[in-house]
Amino acid sequence: MTMPHPEESLRYKLYVIIFRTDTPAGRAFDIALIVTILASLFVLIMGSIGHIAEDYAFELGKIELTFTVLFTIEYLLRLYCSPKPWAYAKSFYGIVDLVAILPFYIALLIADAHFLGVVRLLRVMRIFRILKLVKFIQDSNVIMRSLWNSRRKIFVFFSMVAILVTIFGALLYVIEGPENGFTSIPTSIYWAIVTITTVGYGDISPVTPIGRAIASLTMLLGYSILAVPTGIITAEMSQELKEQKKEYRDHRNLVMCPNCMKNDHEPDAFHCKHCGSELPNHEERVVKVTDNNDYN
Amino acid sequence: MTMPHPEESLRYKLYVIIFRTDTPAGRAFDIALIVTILASLFVLIMGSIGHIAEDYAFELGKIELTFTVLFTIEYLLRLYCSPKPWAYAKSFYGIVDLVAILPFYIALLIADAHFLGVVRLLRVMRIFRILKLVKFIQDSNVIMRSLWNSRRKIFVFFSMVAILVTIFGALLYVIEGPENGFTSIPTSIYWAIVTITTVGYGDISPVTPIGRAIASLTMLLGYSILAVPTGIITAEMSQELKEQKKEYRDHRNLVMCPNCMKNDHEPDAFHCKHCGSELPNHEERVVKVTDNNDYN
Amino acid sequence: MTMPHPEESLRYKLYVIIFRTDTPAGRAFDIALIVTILASLFVLIMGSIGHIAEDYAFELGKIELTFTVLFTIEYLLRLYCSPKPWAYAKSFYGIVDLVAILPFYIALLIADAHFLGVVRLLRVMRIFRILKLVKFIQDSNVIMRSLWNSRRKIFVFFSMVAILVTIFGALLYVIEGPENGFTSIPTSIYWAIVTITTVGYGDISPVTPIGRAIASLTMLLGYSILAVPTGIITAEMSQELKEQKKEYRDHRNLVMCPNCMKNDHEPDAFHCKHCGSELPNHEERVVKVTDNNDYN
Amino acid sequence: MTMPHPEESLRYKLYVIIFRTDTPAGRAFDIALIVTILASLFVLIMGSIGHIAEDYAFELGKIELTFTVLFTIEYLLRLYCSPKPWAYAKSFYGIVDLVAILPFYIALLIADAHFLGVVRLLRVMRIFRILKLVKFIQDSNVIMRSLWNSRRKIFVFFSMVAILVTIFGALLYVIEGPENGFTSIPTSIYWAIVTITTVGYGDISPVTPIGRAIASLTMLLGYSILAVPTGIITAEMSQELKEQKKEYRDHRNLVMCPNCMKNDHEPDAFHCKHCGSELPNHEERVVKVTDNNDYN
Repeated sequence: MTMPHPEESLRYKLYVIIFRTDTPAGRAFDIALIVTILASLFVLIMGSIGHIAEDYAFELGKIELTFTVLFTIEYLLRLYCSPKPWAYAKSFYGIVDLVAILPFYIALLIADAHFLGVVRLLRVMRIFRILKLVKFIQDSNVIMRSLWNSRRKIFVFFSMVAILVTIFGALLYVIEGPENGFTSIPTSIYWAIVTITTVGYGDISPVTPIGRAIASLTMLLGYSILAVPTGIITAEMSQELKEQKKEYRDHRNLVMCPNCMKNDHEPDAFHCKHCGSELPNHEERVVKVTDNNDYN
Repeated sequence: MTMPHPEESLRYKLYVIIFRTDTPAGRAFDIALIVTILASLFVLIMGSIGHIAEDYAFELGKIELTFTVLFTIEYLLRLYCSPKPWAYAKSFYGIVDLVAILPFYIALLIADAHFLGVVRLLRVMRIFRILKLVKFIQDSNVIMRSLWNSRRKIFVFFSMVAILVTIFGALLYVIEGPENGFTSIPTSIYWAIVTITTVGYGDISPVTPIGRAIASLTMLLGYSILAVPTGIITAEMSQELKEQKKEYRDHRNLVMCPNCMKNDHEPDAFHCKHCGSELPNHEERVVKVTDNNDYN
Repeated sequence: MTMPHPEESLRYKLYVIIFRTDTPAGRAFDIALIVTILASLFVLIMGSIGHIAEDYAFELGKIELTFTVLFTIEYLLRLYCSPKPWAYAKSFYGIVDLVAILPFYIALLIADAHFLGVVRLLRVMRIFRILKLVKFIQDSNVIMRSLWNSRRKIFVFFSMVAILVTIFGALLYVIEGPENGFTSIPTSIYWAIVTITTVGYGDISPVTPIGRAIASLTMLLGYSILAVPTGIITAEMSQELKEQKKEYRDHRNLVMCPNCMKNDHEPDAFHCKHCGSELPNHEERVVKVTDNNDYN
Repeated sequence: MTMPHPEESLRYKLYVIIFRTDTPAGRAFDIALIVTILASLFVLIMGSIGHIAEDYAFELGKIELTFTVLFTIEYLLRLYCSPKPWAYAKSFYGIVDLVAILPFYIALLIADAHFLGVVRLLRVMRIFRILKLVKFIQDSNVIMRSLWNSRRKIFVFFSMVAILVTIFGALLYVIEGPENGFTSIPTSIYWAIVTITTVGYGDISPVTPIGRAIASLTMLLGYSILAVPTGIITAEMSQELKEQKKEYRDHRNLVMCPNCMKNDHEPDAFHCKHCGSELPNHEERVVKVTDNNDYN
């Protein structure tokens, strides 16, 4: 078993608590983290409601400061105790952890410049903290892998949608014209996307008989080609489910590295052997593979 | 064959009529119950139409009283004749049966307090009587089990949707702002849900070019990830259909207990062996398994 | 080979032309019929456009009369030459053929009564002539059989949708109330159907925060359970496609009787052996099965 | 190996660069072409925005002229160096290449006639240049073939949708009438398509209780039959994926001719053996099949 920090130092103890989830302390840390993230999102969302923002401006500011301090401490601790700090900082979760705190400090720096629009943008960008929750979602691996494996087909599908949407958008721009709301080709393409995905806001809709006929064709096309991604994902999903069963049988786990997307890791690997990023759900796999594990 | 009430008492006879459906009397009771439920729902729904409620206030009150008395008698009889009254009272159908009558009595108690909003709420809560119909829907077992088996994947899917919806909602709140209807982050998240599920009311819709571009991305994402639950359910469904065929071959029925969700019951079981709740569709299974059954 | 009319009478010749499609005359008759039906639908649809109806009232009347006379002659000839006139008259296509002409004669009878609403209704009911085209759609058998085989599951699905829609409709009626457009429970159920099917007109949409939260839940539920019928149909469709391949291999055709829905017919059967209705696509099957057929 | 132009002439060299992609020059040409097409589409789309069109009328005209000259040269070169110029001119991509330049010249001819609507139409028709991108989309073959193989079932599906939409449109025209926006049967059919595809603009929506009830039925039907194309495509897609794997194993490629849709080509075929059209993705197949190819 490879151990990144063999010494029983504080740094290694912190590493076990913060990065891993196979000890009571590690699990407690994760739960505390999830609660803190959800609470900070709740405050952020509530703070966007006009009268609440006005009435509790001072309290919201203090709460926000507290959360930012907490997340900053977490980020610095992660950097300190990670066996490969730079690899962590560059990894998906490293960037998310940074994005969760950065807007606050940028806002501090440029607050006196009174660029209010930018400050609002920065305040809301803290919403990306929600991505810190992704790693706690079990099973997301299967779905992500299905999507990742069919990325080429999904790209082809979107290329076809892009072509259809451009053609139908341009056609309705010519037929309906600016007087019926189709003010430009970009607007008409927006209309075509709203239509082909069957969203149908109704903010722009055809009025002339020919426009309605071509719009009907767009809808029926959208209705049919919706089946294409479903077919792709369903086929890939069944494949993935079969492989998953085989995996359990073979006592192997195809864990996908969240950083470099490679998935040929040994069951006892803590870190990706290609880029050094932390692998998700390590402890579960270890427990399954080695029954008489002696650490902790 | 296990018989909860071996004595030929009134209580046992009532039990056979009310809880089981394998006798003519039991079947007649069920049909009478279905008709009564549908009639009470019809009266409830009609009574919500303004002019009908005004013109027939007195008649509606009397009809409602009759239905409540009938359902109260049914509930008390079920409690009286059930072999395990407390298990029944705590089971899904026990709670539904209680909810079907409770609002009437609460409304009586607080009617003089003139909390009209609460009274309206209580009156409409009787709509939950419709859940009394669930146990009469054949085959619902297969669909429920498919959904239940994929509950983890569905939870993961909804977590991903929740994350996407929060991010895109916050983005459009920043880009469009309150002046275009995106008054707060909760409102923008509501818009994102309306969009990603392709419902698209059009009560809130983006106006700025950047807002529309990001909204288009939201729609296309919603369009694609819609394929994920379909893939999950389709794969689970095929699995379920195969197992169902195997079940018929093996003369075994994987009946799911409506209370504790376990499904390892013998074909002649009347009640869940884990929690004592009544199992659905008993008589069908018995008829299939034992051809020379001698009761009734 | 069973021949309903062994004699070479006019009646039998007419039967071959009108009911069967394995002779040049029969095929020509079918093409003429399709063209006539499409033309009559075109005239009917055009006649509903306000200014066309006014400007060409006289011409439209004459054309309509011509089509009705033609379809009446067709109906009478079918009755005359069918080997079992009463079975034809009671069959799906017999009723459709009657419905295609009946409104004209009823309108004649009650025209002097000046029930204009009824006359308009009758005039538009001629649209059901479009159902005369159903039998010319090849392959519709496979889709119809998939749907027919999963009718129980689809019924269960719709029962579940009905229950969900009633509960969510009633909830939003209580929460939003008549002041936000949810004027009664039937209207709210209509809103819930519009929402759960992801149509989303936006004519009624929630305004209060709680209403929007529950509406979001409705949308996400609709989004998920949409996967259920897809799963059912896809599973059934794959099954159907496999059986279809087996059929071709076995030189057997599981043709479904359009009247009694049974499908255990021999390949050379002209009529359903259960109810005597004409079976679709006879000649194709015959050609496949017997290579040296000598009639015609 | 068949070589259409065995001589090392300029014409053959041009052919290799323009039509094939297995040489560095050919690949560079393709990339240049893709960039040019995307740039010309960008200019075209930007030019449709009112204020941009006015402010930069002169610049846009000059850019458009440049692109048209470039595409004209490309078209003439393709005609010149194609081994079968007429087959190219008649092929899908030949027609697309012509459509990309034709509108400019027609607009020149009739510009003095001041048919502004036609000029606008012709200008926007250049959007079809986007189809020149289709052949660069990898994997589109699999999706196109899935769709092509299920064309009969898709046609049947659309016939059924057409029948449903006509009947429900006519019903709502009768029930709601012109006073609620259902001004004619074509308009009502448009409404039915908007509804059955779950787009739901809300520009036309039922108001009367009966109209809403029938509209609800339409939605639920649309919701269910949406599963039919998904089932068709998913089944076809799995089949296609299986065959694709078999193909790779057999070192054979079922390339579909873009002109005559036949797909029984040898792996080293440059051109369709039925109609002489250029086959897509030649070089990839060649590289896979023959490892020691010696030309170029």
